[in-house]
Amino acid sequence: MIAPPSSLPALRLKPKADARRLRHGAPWVWADELVLDRRSRGIPAGALAILEDADRRPVGVGVATVEAKIAFRMLDRDATAVIDADWLRARIAAALDLRQKVFDAPYYRLIHAEGDALPGLIVDRFGETLVIQPNAIWLEERLDMLSEILADLTGCTALIKNGSGRARAAEGLAEETVVLRGAAPEGPMPVPMNGAIYMADVMAGQKTGLFYDQRFNHGVAAGLAREARVLDVFSHVGGFALACLAGGATGAMAVDASEPALDLALAGARAMGRAADLTTRRGDAFAVMEALEQEGESFDLVIADPPAFAPSKPALEKGLRAYERVARLAAPLVAPGGVLILCSCSHAADLGKFRAACLRGIGRAGRVPRLIHTGFAGPDHPQHPDLTETGYLKVLAFRLLP
Amino acid sequence: MIAPPSSLPALRLKPKADARRLRHGAPWVWADELVLDRRSRGIPAGALAILEDADRRPVGVGVATVEAKIAFRMLDRDATAVIDADWLRARIAAALDLRQKVFDAPYYRLIHAEGDALPGLIVDRFGETLVIQPNAIWLEERLDMLSEILADLTGCTALIKNGSGRARAAEGLAEETVVLRGAAPEGPMPVPMNGAIYMADVMAGQKTGLFYDQRFNHGVAAGLAREARVLDVFSHVGGFALACLAGGATGAMAVDASEPALDLALAGARAMGRAADLTTRRGDAFAVMEALEQEGESFDLVIADPPAFAPSKPALEKGLRAYERVARLAAPLVAPGGVLILCSCSHAADLGKFRAACLRGIGRAGRVPRLIHTGFAGPDHPQHPDLTETGYLKVLAFRLLP
Repeated sequence: MIAPPSSLPALRLKPKADARRLRHGAPWVWADELVLDRRSRGIPAGALAILEDADRRPVGVGVATVEAKIAFRMLDRDATAVIDADWLRARIAAALDLRQKVFDAPYYRLIHAEGDALPGLIVDRFGETLVIQPNAIWLEERLDMLSEILADLTGCTALIKNGSGRARAAEGLAEETVVLRGAAPEGPMPVPMNGAIYMADVMAGQKTGLFYDQRFNHGVAAGLAREARVLDVFSHVGGFALACLAGGATGAMAVDASEPALDLALAGARAMGRAADLTTRRGDAFAVMEALEQEGESFDLVIADPPAFAPSKPALEKGLRAYERVARLAAPLVAPGGVLILCSCSHAADLGKFRAACLRGIGRAGRVPRLIHTGFAGPDHPQHPDLTETGYLKVLAFRLLP
Repeated sequence: MIAPPSSLPALRLKPKADARRLRHGAPWVWADELVLDRRSRGIPAGALAILEDADRRPVGVGVATVEAKIAFRMLDRDATAVIDADWLRARIAAALDLRQKVFDAPYYRLIHAEGDALPGLIVDRFGETLVIQPNAIWLEERLDMLSEILADLTGCTALIKNGSGRARAAEGLAEETVVLRGAAPEGPMPVPMNGAIYMADVMAGQKTGLFYDQRFNHGVAAGLAREARVLDVFSHVGGFALACLAGGATGAMAVDASEPALDLALAGARAMGRAADLTTRRGDAFAVMEALEQEGESFDLVIADPPAFAPSKPALEKGLRAYERVARLAAPLVAPGGVLILCSCSHAADLGKFRAACLRGIGRAGRVPRLIHTGFAGPDHPQHPDLTETGYLKVLAFRLLP
């Protein structure tokens, strides 16, 4: 039933393309690196293909999308590898193995696309529920096989397909969220992390779901929160605020523009028996920070985890100015000797540029900082070394001297 | 008794020097930024002085060492500040406050020089014992005052001056380790961290003392060590090995060139009741790694935390080749799907260069890596944002795909 690899169509690299880079593990081939003729252009998007170097020696097997900017994604550097259920199972089992080593409870990102050598596939685990994002045609075509393997390896009973990613649109895939197996969770689910309880509405998507990437940094913040008054700006469902309450904060204020997100933060605090210690303030984060300063408010620990202000290179300068403004407005709210944690999930702003923007903002607020932590996404978000994009998350903790 | 600040000698910046940088918190003035005449050259090394801009407006008060490359170190941007016992006490109290928030037990770096706005001063705390490195003349001259304040604020009963730093020689200070207060600890002291127990010989200095900077990364390694077989190369007193045993490793091998360091690692394992689970191998780390590969050994988690191969810019290229070689020799010892943690404490090798060297070495070993953690020194090593030197420590954890 499985066709031998030699029956797969071949895509050939131009002589100037760097095949060695791919043989060493680079994941993507750009359209301008490939010989694109009538035959190769005929390979349907999402089909498996063999990549060859300019001398027609095989480089690997992968997924062709020749009309896209990323024209080929490597699946296996062994060009004879058969991309079947056994192959998928081995990759998923390896990913699961890492998570089971690192985490005590089944709440984590199980598959992180290229980071787990499964291009386009994102799977988040919430206890017995898996939320699958098959953000590529080759995955959409193998969704039954994937579900079977995932359910079997994890024992999860509910599998949900979340089809809301931007990446799906780029592949021409429909935006839809459907239950693949079992029953959809009835309302928000409790997710225990860092001693806190988060309420995640996994069916309603990004606005009220949960991001695992900040877990490690939530823990760092919690470790700085003992007896602190905490301000969590751009709080979403309370990621930092609730972890800090669990870490010993005496109180926390969560600021967000989304009422449903703040409601979930409050529900989390209730589940922790700490409802009295969490206040919320809905509104534009910049305006709220300005108002808090005018009100003379001061916190021992202030965290700002804004949306991606610099999602792409053209947005970089504007984005960096926004990060600087966040720092400038947040720094005055930090008590003498307190800590300011600033986050960026912008692909385009690298660590150095983001840090410089933060330092400008802190300096303009007249405060003197010391850097006490630099963090990234946790180990359930492995980074392919060639893809800085997968290393988008950067977190800086500054102590502001008394 | 305290002279008013106006009685202090003045040092003037050249017109081309950037006074704004200093007003925003830059810590150092280079010799070529100062107007050096007969009068200013007469200021004794280590004396307090007022820094003025080219228009004779005060910039701050600090320590002059006009014959040195770093000719002035800022103590306070308020030029009217009086550098007396109250001033020192406030700075030390602020540093202590951060550590008491972050750490459950009194084992940490209490003062990290410029990172705690106390240029040249390093203080490590081991329970009721403080090890003080006064690496500058202005500190040596105030050692009694410093001891008094430190003892009073911390309640520590034993104060030891460790005068072995390279920085002291640069300031013309003698190399000597003496007991300032109380009694020197009799033999190695147990230091609890990350669930492990380390034995630290604080009187014998660097070779058998303890470094707190890796504590956070030891914890990360411990979190990856459940049921793992661990190899700790350049183990020193067992920093990673013992934390991994505490984290659930089934066994660990510590490799180091120093017999006393390995003896302390074994003593730590005994104190943890895990003597049977730690083996040691004394020798050149490169040779031992080659031998282990020939013996067909394999580990789930391999850590290499070598000495600074690139301590200065001239040593950079050679140092990077040494880091690449460590990666190339360590990677074959990692089991499929296992983790390789590589560390650098080299000032000259920045994060990008170090990561590239590691990736070259892993690639040459034929392994495919994913980055699952990037770490730095912990929060008891605050970084001055202008001093990349104080951010010397870099730790990368790579998962090597099966």
